[in-house]
Amino acid sequence: MKKIGKQTIKFNNPPTILECATIVGPKEADGPLAKYFDRCLENEMWGEKTWEKAESKIVKETANLVIAKSGIPANEIEYCFAGDLLNQCISSSFGLRELNIPFFGIFGACSTFVEGLSLASIFVENGIKHTISTASSHFCSSEKQFRFPLELGNQRPQTSQWTVTGAGATILSNSGQGPYITSITSGKIVDMGIKDANNMGAAMAPAAFDTMMTHFRDTGRSPNYYDAILTGDLGYVGKDILIELSEKAGYNIKSVYNDCGVLIFDKEKQDTHSGGSGCGCCASVFSGYLFKQLKEKKLKKILLMATGALMNSMSSQQGESIPGIAHAISIEI
Amino acid sequence: MKKIGKQTIKFNNPPTILECATIVGPKEADGPLAKYFDRCLENEMWGEKTWEKAESKIVKETANLVIAKSGIPANEIEYCFAGDLLNQCISSSFGLRELNIPFFGIFGACSTFVEGLSLASIFVENGIKHTISTASSHFCSSEKQFRFPLELGNQRPQTSQWTVTGAGATILSNSGQGPYITSITSGKIVDMGIKDANNMGAAMAPAAFDTMMTHFRDTGRSPNYYDAILTGDLGYVGKDILIELSEKAGYNIKSVYNDCGVLIFDKEKQDTHSGGSGCGCCASVFSGYLFKQLKEKKLKKILLMATGALMNSMSSQQGESIPGIAHAISIEI
Repeated sequence: MKKIGKQTIKFNNPPTILECATIVGPKEADGPLAKYFDRCLENEMWGEKTWEKAESKIVKETANLVIAKSGIPANEIEYCFAGDLLNQCISSSFGLRELNIPFFGIFGACSTFVEGLSLASIFVENGIKHTISTASSHFCSSEKQFRFPLELGNQRPQTSQWTVTGAGATILSNSGQGPYITSITSGKIVDMGIKDANNMGAAMAPAAFDTMMTHFRDTGRSPNYYDAILTGDLGYVGKDILIELSEKAGYNIKSVYNDCGVLIFDKEKQDTHSGGSGCGCCASVFSGYLFKQLKEKKLKKILLMATGALMNSMSSQQGESIPGIAHAISIEI
Repeated sequence: MKKIGKQTIKFNNPPTILECATIVGPKEADGPLAKYFDRCLENEMWGEKTWEKAESKIVKETANLVIAKSGIPANEIEYCFAGDLLNQCISSSFGLRELNIPFFGIFGACSTFVEGLSLASIFVENGIKHTISTASSHFCSSEKQFRFPLELGNQRPQTSQWTVTGAGATILSNSGQGPYITSITSGKIVDMGIKDANNMGAAMAPAAFDTMMTHFRDTGRSPNYYDAILTGDLGYVGKDILIELSEKAGYNIKSVYNDCGVLIFDKEKQDTHSGGSGCGCCASVFSGYLFKQLKEKKLKKILLMATGALMNSMSSQQGESIPGIAHAISIEI
């Protein structure tokens, strides 16, 4: 691997994204990407007694599914990278406790999926044969933890995003036919002082802008190098802010840019306001939809940039602003 | 780097632990290791309005201190790895938001410090010049979050451990005179069905045993290869269990083994019951005490093995057991 510029590592032996799997909830199953997901659940509980246990089950089954699809024996997968939104990342640790694979717990809020792929790709680039990465979220467990009891039927502001119920899991390998992770641009924490916990898109957009500009500067690329630039989940509000920030910096990204939170739900029919969010949003949109587009060569070069809001409900109560982060990886066939 | 056995990576160009810094709270300042810490606070608040803000300040100042001590310009430190016990790891993200260094958030409960050093050492082994790793915890913010309001003056069971208020920060470099991280043995999640959230030592000891045995098997080493084997924070109860499990497996570790949670407080005078715990325990005992022992060649080869309990307060309420994990690194001069 080779460091280029300030924050980008370019790989000499780019890891192959060998296989992906996705399991999502019922609302995601009603959305425009339903046909790309491996499994769509009929309800948010999946036979479990609590939302948290259901989320763990989604993580567990998504990991099992990607291993089965890959044909790689589980004992040949050398490292696992996983994280989620629940306090102390319990959906990952409970969901993966029987996996029996060395485990690195990570937390990057909704940037977790790409953070995991970034770390895993460093391992695979340097001689590790196979890794598994997962990220998950669950609408009900998130609402309960971060916002209000669901039973309250609280009104959601128009800027708020809908946490995706779902998980994505990805196996990286040191051999294979691609798509390849060719570089990673790892983000710094960016805090522009936004305090509205119902407007995560606005809080995270400056971090996405910072990482994207750094990526262009480090690599000498411009937006048109890519068939698609995708943010993790800025939603409609954050997407517009990122387009505007880019325009002001002299970059027109409109023709290639979209957001996983915008793609996963139908704006007119599904009433999610500013679109999807949660670690499971980027994870399932990539592992379901984008991976297949790459495999079928409908997309050949993408920049996947997951964004996270590094706060909790208490930090907002204590008057803190919302630090954002964005991790980017370029994926090419 | 080279994978040896199932879970161990041995380094060809072992990263140097260039510098460490530690800031701890008043109880730690009354303990037997006080003289090794860079700064001991007079109270748990450090002029902040909340315990959480105080913890963030400890993280921030510890990171600033290690950078200052190292003499490395902050803009030459290429990656940061950090985590803590607070929900969504906010002490790290708020404490380090002004650091302006690409940031990987990690969560391994009390194993976080060694998890961070493990990941950082992979980066440095493969060409990155400098990294910073931090981990922190705070007695008051942890008690509030995981157990009872402090104001309740609740009785603590004899098996419970006392969360350390403090942070450790470490800079790894690809050149320097050591001590070196020569190998990492990364742990799997181990869940033996222990459900008592007031007996973390018992929940984590099987994970420590699993990682230690794996390390011996992978490397062909036995306990007497090391001057010292140190667990992160099993405390007195978990320490005894690990000694017993090792004896049954034919390994006598007694003469070289100790625990950071046992070392940091005085058993007779400080009434912490089973000893210290928290991400900040292993982080401050290593960054304060052990690092200096290594620099002064009083210790030449140590196995540092931080243990984490991957649960939250809700998982216990939902009847779940406590999955444990242990990450080990060998450090040699």
